[in-house]
Amino acid sequence: MRWPGAEARASGAVGMSSEIGIALLGAGNVGSGFVAALAQGRERHASHVGAPLALRRVLVRNRERNRPGIAEGQLTTSIEDVLADPHTQIVVELMGGEFPAFDYIRRALVSGRHVVTANKEVMAKRGAELLAAAAKHDVRLLYEASVGGGIPVVHPLGRDLLANEISSVTAIINGTTNYMLTAMTQQGAEYADVLREAQRLGYAEPDPTDDVQGIDAAYKLAILCGLAFHVQLLPEEITRRGITALTARDFLYARELGYTIKLLATGRVVDRELIATVQPTLVASNEPLAKVDGVLNAIQIEGDLVGRVVFEGPGAGRAPTSSAVLADVLDVARDIVAGRSERPEPARRTVRVRPPAEHRARHYLRVGVLDQAGVLARIAGALGDNGVSIASVIQFETDEEPETAELVLTTHFAEGGPLQRALDRIAALNVVRDVGMVLPMVGQGAR
Amino acid sequence: MRWPGAEARASGAVGMSSEIGIALLGAGNVGSGFVAALAQGRERHASHVGAPLALRRVLVRNRERNRPGIAEGQLTTSIEDVLADPHTQIVVELMGGEFPAFDYIRRALVSGRHVVTANKEVMAKRGAELLAAAAKHDVRLLYEASVGGGIPVVHPLGRDLLANEISSVTAIINGTTNYMLTAMTQQGAEYADVLREAQRLGYAEPDPTDDVQGIDAAYKLAILCGLAFHVQLLPEEITRRGITALTARDFLYARELGYTIKLLATGRVVDRELIATVQPTLVASNEPLAKVDGVLNAIQIEGDLVGRVVFEGPGAGRAPTSSAVLADVLDVARDIVAGRSERPEPARRTVRVRPPAEHRARHYLRVGVLDQAGVLARIAGALGDNGVSIASVIQFETDEEPETAELVLTTHFAEGGPLQRALDRIAALNVVRDVGMVLPMVGQGAR
Repeated sequence: MRWPGAEARASGAVGMSSEIGIALLGAGNVGSGFVAALAQGRERHASHVGAPLALRRVLVRNRERNRPGIAEGQLTTSIEDVLADPHTQIVVELMGGEFPAFDYIRRALVSGRHVVTANKEVMAKRGAELLAAAAKHDVRLLYEASVGGGIPVVHPLGRDLLANEISSVTAIINGTTNYMLTAMTQQGAEYADVLREAQRLGYAEPDPTDDVQGIDAAYKLAILCGLAFHVQLLPEEITRRGITALTARDFLYARELGYTIKLLATGRVVDRELIATVQPTLVASNEPLAKVDGVLNAIQIEGDLVGRVVFEGPGAGRAPTSSAVLADVLDVARDIVAGRSERPEPARRTVRVRPPAEHRARHYLRVGVLDQAGVLARIAGALGDNGVSIASVIQFETDEEPETAELVLTTHFAEGGPLQRALDRIAALNVVRDVGMVLPMVGQGAR
Repeated sequence: MRWPGAEARASGAVGMSSEIGIALLGAGNVGSGFVAALAQGRERHASHVGAPLALRRVLVRNRERNRPGIAEGQLTTSIEDVLADPHTQIVVELMGGEFPAFDYIRRALVSGRHVVTANKEVMAKRGAELLAAAAKHDVRLLYEASVGGGIPVVHPLGRDLLANEISSVTAIINGTTNYMLTAMTQQGAEYADVLREAQRLGYAEPDPTDDVQGIDAAYKLAILCGLAFHVQLLPEEITRRGITALTARDFLYARELGYTIKLLATGRVVDRELIATVQPTLVASNEPLAKVDGVLNAIQIEGDLVGRVVFEGPGAGRAPTSSAVLADVLDVARDIVAGRSERPEPARRTVRVRPPAEHRARHYLRVGVLDQAGVLARIAGALGDNGVSIASVIQFETDEEPETAELVLTTHFAEGGPLQRALDRIAALNVVRDVGMVLPMVGQGAR
């Protein structure tokens, strides 16, 4: 007894179809990884698809550089050249960035090519337009690699969890910052030092802005929220805060409270409104996401039927990204061989996105104070007058200035608006040196 | 700007198609959960699919029982009755067991119905025949819910990780035994006591054989290996050992060594041969799977491109299972609405499955001995003569019999054959009371 595929092919009922032509846009680190993976898996891919995949043209900025696995004649610097090839059926976009990638993807779709992209920025900012173009021209636009590297999450959200009403997505989706926060947790190091180390190891870019300011994570969260909640969400609608202001002391205090600090990307639906944030967050040490260390990524999804599922793995890198890009390519290729038509994506609705003033959370507050009697009473008064109640207080000595101390307070659930009013009043107290840090908290820490 | 689906439907370009008829086989715990989920998500499902889903007939053994959400007239005890309904396009099989489920699924496929099943036993034992029947009759047979409850893993393996050469699948895929082993770890309790407690809580069946002997896990592993390695593997080809012989002392000793005991289902490809086992295993406490506690399931997959990804979540229960079943139903329904043709599954090959004598592993050995000088030397001699080298030895006092002790040895990597020969010789030594337990080890425990 053989399996259906084997049987069909062995009997010749399904022969090998003719080559499926692929064009690649961008031959940098990820692009060259894709070329290598395509070559290495050649026979397996052909067997899975029922037709060989053939790399046709490769769009680059600089033709002169030597590129392993790519023949001289395949290189071109012109998108017209790529799209003029009648044998190219799938265009793989691995250039990154909004421009000119958006334009090239759009033109590929309009010309009747299926497109596979790893481009989170384009999909987050312009995904709606591009998916509409794909639908109009009866081709597919797939983007599994745009979130979580090789971790299957885009397609599982759109297909395997589709029956659920999803209530929340909570994710660690930026490896660079997770590496840095893990180092700050484990080594007690300061931000500037771990950034330098991350840059030295190649985990952080020379200009780390996109990672450390949460911009990269916000692109990915916009994509995840779109799929999870069937909504339109633009990255600029996400409340976003980076990790640059965190100090070694915050990690110390967090541990004291039974928490660790992670850059969490969170989307939640409350009363048909969306709360979407990327911000450093105190995560209780017993939460699954607290244990996701180093460059790993993890995405936790809660649905009404499935409960809580977690997907974890390497969130970046050329091989994991190639895994996701090639999965999309194989999927499209199998459809081409089977002569399958496209099908519409589930509809999306517009949604009100709640501003930070309406976010409810428990909070960690670090406040620098003069070491005097009555300080706590005045801070507690400012919080209490705004309806924010205190869950715990610990006073820490600092060696920075004499006669000063640091108060670490945690609050019960409070909305951002009243909390901000309380913090403004606290900052203006003459016994307060500064409100050093305010972070939301998730889970129940066990000290 | 609206999203493509919304746009198309709003403009009437894609109207609502006519109802998609669903028949349900089996209205027990899982089946009634499916009926409830179908009713509860009615509007959302219709919007995602572009057509309403309608439950037509429900096959039950006993028509007399009252079943919430199912009208009297929908019930039938006859499969002919179900298949005679011309409006039924999808048959959902949630009866469980090989018979008569296999026959009913086959007849549904032959009659041109798509089939969605949660039946691990049928898919593990007869999946090849059924998938062949589906291919022949140009319909789909989907079985996401057969492994890992609501955790997406069947479809992600077949689609999202398809570009990878997968080297291993390591999984905790039986919630009952994981609940029991977690209780033994945390409470120091004996097997019989945790089984009684698990039965009282409804986590274990009155007859727990399928769970505690690893039979259920072997069905699921056969399905996972088939997808991961593109092979045919029958459950009886899997080396299988249950958890019934484990004692509280094994958990104590394991912890002493830096490990915890899990019922691991493992599939690995070595030199194009398959090693497939379901057995209690010492897992180093720092391994991700060591932290999967209670009724949770987790599946860890290693591929050449993706590296290591882990999927975790609730592995059973009516709602999580409904999540997976409904995902398959929605997928088929969307294809029906789009008028999409089927496509062949990747081919599978036959594979040699290595017998236990050829499995290489490190091992934990618990040996009851007389408390005499020279005992260790004789045991070490028996191991050494068979090429098995010792990594560590700890002697524990037991209070069971005077003048006896327990030796806990760990070995370096050794094949099952030589190890068994050494154990036979050790068991025959007059200073040895018994070889109490032999378990493979995974990962590096930190004491």
